[in-house]
Amino acid sequence: MAELTALFRPQSVAVVGASKQPGKIGNAVMKNILASGYRGAVYPINPKESEILGVTCHPSVSAVPANIDMAVLSVPAAQVLAVARECGEKKVKALTIITAGFKEIGKEGLDLEKKLLLLCSQYDMRMLGPNCVGLMDTHTPINASFAATFLSKGEIAFLSQSGAILLAILDWSETAELGFSKVVSLGNKADLSEIDFIEDAANDPYTRVILCYIEDIVDGPRFIEVAGRAAKKKPVIVFKSGVSQAGAQAASSHTGALAGSDLAYDTAFEQCGVIRAHSMTELFDLAVAFSKSAIPAGDRVAVVTNSGGPGIIATDNIEMLGLQMARFEKNTIEELRANLPQEAGIYNPVDVLGDAGVDRYEFALQKVMEDSNVDSVLVLVCPTAVTQPVEVSHTILRARDAYPGKPVFAAYTGGQSLAKGAGLLSGAGVPCFTFPEPAIVCLKGLNSYGQYLNARAVADERVLAGVDQKTVKAVFYDATRDHRLILLGSEAAEAANAYGIPTAPIVLATTPEEAVEAADKMGYPVVLKASSPKILHKTDVGGVIVGINSAAEVQKAFIEIMESVHRYLPKVVIYGIEVQKMKEPGTELIIGMTRDLQFGPLIAFGLGGIYVNLLKDVAFRLASDLKNAKKIEEMISETKAYTLLKGYRGEAPKDMAAVIDVIRRTALFVTDFPEITEMDINPLFAYKKGVSAVDVKITIS
Amino acid sequence: MAELTALFRPQSVAVVGASKQPGKIGNAVMKNILASGYRGAVYPINPKESEILGVTCHPSVSAVPANIDMAVLSVPAAQVLAVARECGEKKVKALTIITAGFKEIGKEGLDLEKKLLLLCSQYDMRMLGPNCVGLMDTHTPINASFAATFLSKGEIAFLSQSGAILLAILDWSETAELGFSKVVSLGNKADLSEIDFIEDAANDPYTRVILCYIEDIVDGPRFIEVAGRAAKKKPVIVFKSGVSQAGAQAASSHTGALAGSDLAYDTAFEQCGVIRAHSMTELFDLAVAFSKSAIPAGDRVAVVTNSGGPGIIATDNIEMLGLQMARFEKNTIEELRANLPQEAGIYNPVDVLGDAGVDRYEFALQKVMEDSNVDSVLVLVCPTAVTQPVEVSHTILRARDAYPGKPVFAAYTGGQSLAKGAGLLSGAGVPCFTFPEPAIVCLKGLNSYGQYLNARAVADERVLAGVDQKTVKAVFYDATRDHRLILLGSEAAEAANAYGIPTAPIVLATTPEEAVEAADKMGYPVVLKASSPKILHKTDVGGVIVGINSAAEVQKAFIEIMESVHRYLPKVVIYGIEVQKMKEPGTELIIGMTRDLQFGPLIAFGLGGIYVNLLKDVAFRLASDLKNAKKIEEMISETKAYTLLKGYRGEAPKDMAAVIDVIRRTALFVTDFPEITEMDINPLFAYKKGVSAVDVKITIS
Repeated sequence: MAELTALFRPQSVAVVGASKQPGKIGNAVMKNILASGYRGAVYPINPKESEILGVTCHPSVSAVPANIDMAVLSVPAAQVLAVARECGEKKVKALTIITAGFKEIGKEGLDLEKKLLLLCSQYDMRMLGPNCVGLMDTHTPINASFAATFLSKGEIAFLSQSGAILLAILDWSETAELGFSKVVSLGNKADLSEIDFIEDAANDPYTRVILCYIEDIVDGPRFIEVAGRAAKKKPVIVFKSGVSQAGAQAASSHTGALAGSDLAYDTAFEQCGVIRAHSMTELFDLAVAFSKSAIPAGDRVAVVTNSGGPGIIATDNIEMLGLQMARFEKNTIEELRANLPQEAGIYNPVDVLGDAGVDRYEFALQKVMEDSNVDSVLVLVCPTAVTQPVEVSHTILRARDAYPGKPVFAAYTGGQSLAKGAGLLSGAGVPCFTFPEPAIVCLKGLNSYGQYLNARAVADERVLAGVDQKTVKAVFYDATRDHRLILLGSEAAEAANAYGIPTAPIVLATTPEEAVEAADKMGYPVVLKASSPKILHKTDVGGVIVGINSAAEVQKAFIEIMESVHRYLPKVVIYGIEVQKMKEPGTELIIGMTRDLQFGPLIAFGLGGIYVNLLKDVAFRLASDLKNAKKIEEMISETKAYTLLKGYRGEAPKDMAAVIDVIRRTALFVTDFPEITEMDINPLFAYKKGVSAVDVKITIS
Repeated sequence: MAELTALFRPQSVAVVGASKQPGKIGNAVMKNILASGYRGAVYPINPKESEILGVTCHPSVSAVPANIDMAVLSVPAAQVLAVARECGEKKVKALTIITAGFKEIGKEGLDLEKKLLLLCSQYDMRMLGPNCVGLMDTHTPINASFAATFLSKGEIAFLSQSGAILLAILDWSETAELGFSKVVSLGNKADLSEIDFIEDAANDPYTRVILCYIEDIVDGPRFIEVAGRAAKKKPVIVFKSGVSQAGAQAASSHTGALAGSDLAYDTAFEQCGVIRAHSMTELFDLAVAFSKSAIPAGDRVAVVTNSGGPGIIATDNIEMLGLQMARFEKNTIEELRANLPQEAGIYNPVDVLGDAGVDRYEFALQKVMEDSNVDSVLVLVCPTAVTQPVEVSHTILRARDAYPGKPVFAAYTGGQSLAKGAGLLSGAGVPCFTFPEPAIVCLKGLNSYGQYLNARAVADERVLAGVDQKTVKAVFYDATRDHRLILLGSEAAEAANAYGIPTAPIVLATTPEEAVEAADKMGYPVVLKASSPKILHKTDVGGVIVGINSAAEVQKAFIEIMESVHRYLPKVVIYGIEVQKMKEPGTELIIGMTRDLQFGPLIAFGLGGIYVNLLKDVAFRLASDLKNAKKIEEMISETKAYTLLKGYRGEAPKDMAAVIDVIRRTALFVTDFPEITEMDINPLFAYKKGVSAVDVKITIS
């Protein structure tokens, strides 16, 4: 994104709405730019002033006798359009619009924002904001914001959708001694969004870790693509709030309601290697860890401690977060046994005991670092009479340097007596916490990221043979002409079948004779169902008869259903009666699809049958992630249905490949036809050989 | 526990093993006692010295010319018994044994510890330790420990099973500005344990909050009783580690394996109102919250913020932890609408906007505090140009004082610019955090505690009529005589039935004629099963025939089974064949029992059938908590089985009262007969009317 150079490395900056008056935003921005050590030209713009803070003032952008790379706008909302146009004429490359009063105030503001965006695109200007705090870059350096504090130089790029959180973090970062490469307040994200800034930061040589606080993502697929690419270069850590709103939405009895859109975020982040933080503290703990530490080769953690309690706590947390306690090589255990006191713990955690000086830490650390079964090490120090925290820190640093591929973390649980040792570690790039728990959260994050980096590229097997789009289009066309959004069962089955999904034969019959013909053709037993989008609960109105074994019974059932439905619902005209072949019961599965606003089709898979909503044994993936059999089997394996398919308690295994194929075809189907808003196959029967979609529901828009 | 007075408020203390030599524990203890401002008499004991640190030294305890209330022992392990005996003769009331080398070093040490304990009880001395750091009381004051730091006075009693964690926390507490009433290092807990000290702290007027770090509990039932009583007086907060060890143990396919003993702790803590912390940080956050805050009347939280982002984060966490976002009264909303700017958030969270000074906070806080739908309030402050943190703090303090029953918490997200305001709050007793999340964890803890305080005493309905212990004893006697620990199906059913659990009729027949007689009596259809503790999978050896409808079929089936089993397992002698009445299928439930080492019988309830291990839809309670129908229905309601029993998707509701009764009877049964080590009813069929235990398994010891 070379176009962002104008924002982060401008040759010249105009401040439109610059002011002499302390307390005004236009004054704060001027002050900040000057104080930041910015080396380019600064042009305050204000028709009423001749100079501001000692810098010559111009009455308008067009009056500036030189090129302007970036303009920071802090003028009333009503003037923004005019100023932006003037900037366009002046060939300004980028705007940072601090002014509020756009989308966030409602319809009127939204209209203004749209006009502004159009204008920017006409003049080929990129825009940050509106309604933002501005941006900072510590390497240019420039502070084009109204924040009261400038940043310490560092390697973290921080993007925040909340201006308040950005200001709070800037304030807090001084106390926490955090350094940043750049900081961006995203504001309303009318043009540039976190996606653009993630892409930019991925290419920024001064940035090692990309940190985001966001409340929504506007273009899900592009986010996945860009963040996924960025994450291959450097870690992208996101704290996304607004989880509970989604939770509140979920109320429908449809399987989609099992999802909630926060799940789509979770799924998307995992897909593109984004590490998700779950609190502000975690966001910054992870930032520190990622900016300082190597990425571990695996999930096997060794713990070295001088006390039992913290060792147990660490073990608990390592297991709870899904990491492994390393099992040492025989040689390591023997050496530890031979050289540590008899009461020492020589397995993992290694307990060098409370009376340990630096020598025991040194020895134990050396041994576990060189053990090939260890991927990362956590050193715990509690203050005792003989603890040598500073010396232990030097030992840890030497060990880290000797094994640069193995992350070492520390938790020095204490106060003043350990402060110097802890500070030594933090200062020299070993993350050091007060308690063990956050260290392990960070190790978990590093490990997840390592897995993403190491994952082989997955071949895209989605292009399928034998897909018949024409049939689908014809079915959708008929339904649309008939003003129906919910397809009839027979239509849904026909469409799914056209995508190679094996469905139980189902035919719409309008006369008893047609029904008999269909039944004879598909073979008995069959079920007859009244077909009408107006009837929600067919069984309640006598609209379903199962277990029909002969032509005569079909004839009789047809008439019975017609009569019964007419009796219950005299005003409902039914389309006819669907004749469906009854399949022998198999393992009942469900495949569902809801369309997430941000990320597109979200596929659900799990145990089916009437208890699906009760058991909630469902795994989710974005359709875009279900590229091949391996990915799909991974998804299936997250559910209890997997155990059943593999053959539970002596039952014969079911046809896993056929199940995988149906999921793959469903993902392709709903991707090819964005007009499908919801789809459910429930149940899909899985047999020893093959599968059968017994009930397919499709809603189109 | 008046007997602990000798530990915490001794009139005189002897330090056996006192030393002149800095670095020695006997020196540190002497120094600490003297430096703590202890006002009683101190007697250093050391045959080689005449004075230590200016205090006259005595050669032995018996040589001290006055009474001794407490003796602190820091002598080699080999001398401890002799010294303790001398103390006993001297009528010392309590010992604090710092010396290590007991249970923690293995068999030899354990033997020594047992002798020591016996000796203490002979002389009626209470003992803290051995293998501990000692104890402190800030109000006596006394520091009878070898910790380097003394405490700040405060209202927290802290008991720690880990000496290292105790030392670490003491060190850290200075930085964190925490104060304590007393601190106890529990050591090996040979005599006095956390239970005794919880009881003591509950009666200590200087203690407001009781804090524990523990790794195990030795006497579960007594813990529940004592902690439950203490929790009615003041909060007891426990961080219990060792969670993952339990997790590793769980491997059996038995339902008990669904539990893991950490679950027994969880269940026990909930039962006795103990608040469980999940990390060291949480332990101390909760300590601060509980020592400063009122207990809320309910779970409805109002949030007042000057920025959207933190408001969303708070909302997320409130919902995730199971608290409620308060829904304001109409009047509150109207007043907020009339008096706050148009863009302000007037529902919950109340967003007073980034440009809010103290006035808006004052108004909003006033309104939500007086709203009767609000039980507690969280105030969020982010630094903006106009934020007045100190003034806002004063406002919060006034609000807190005006509504003493409603807890107010704060999160000031920032650094230096908010520090003074935040410090003001913390100093004046309003818990103030940097980020919203821990504040909400604390509100959750307060609310759980409030629920415990408000819970009505539950009537004990466990005494049941119609219980026939003689039959049970007879059945157990026969099995024991026969050297069997696993009862036959017919025996288990008979025993369960004797406790009023409705079982499907089952009779052991040794001849075809007996089988026919039994079948005729119970009615058809019946199932026949080979009866032998040696056959684990009866179906595999042709040992089960179902759906038998006549006497002739019974006769035939009896012989078939005998032949088949003999063919497969020629060496197994079977007891006979069990004839069981086949019950129509109902909702399949499971009731299971495992006996927890610490807490006794742990009852499991959930969905039954062959998928029980797969679905893991199980709730757990200690049998001691299942005192009446209300408690049992609470337990059932935690499972998906509850939804089924209530009548899922139009199915008829099942006989909830009968299910409750079986659980109650099972709890009583396993409590009355501690020799039952495991018990399973799977399935229990629940019908519209009544229930039937189809398969009962009982293991005795």
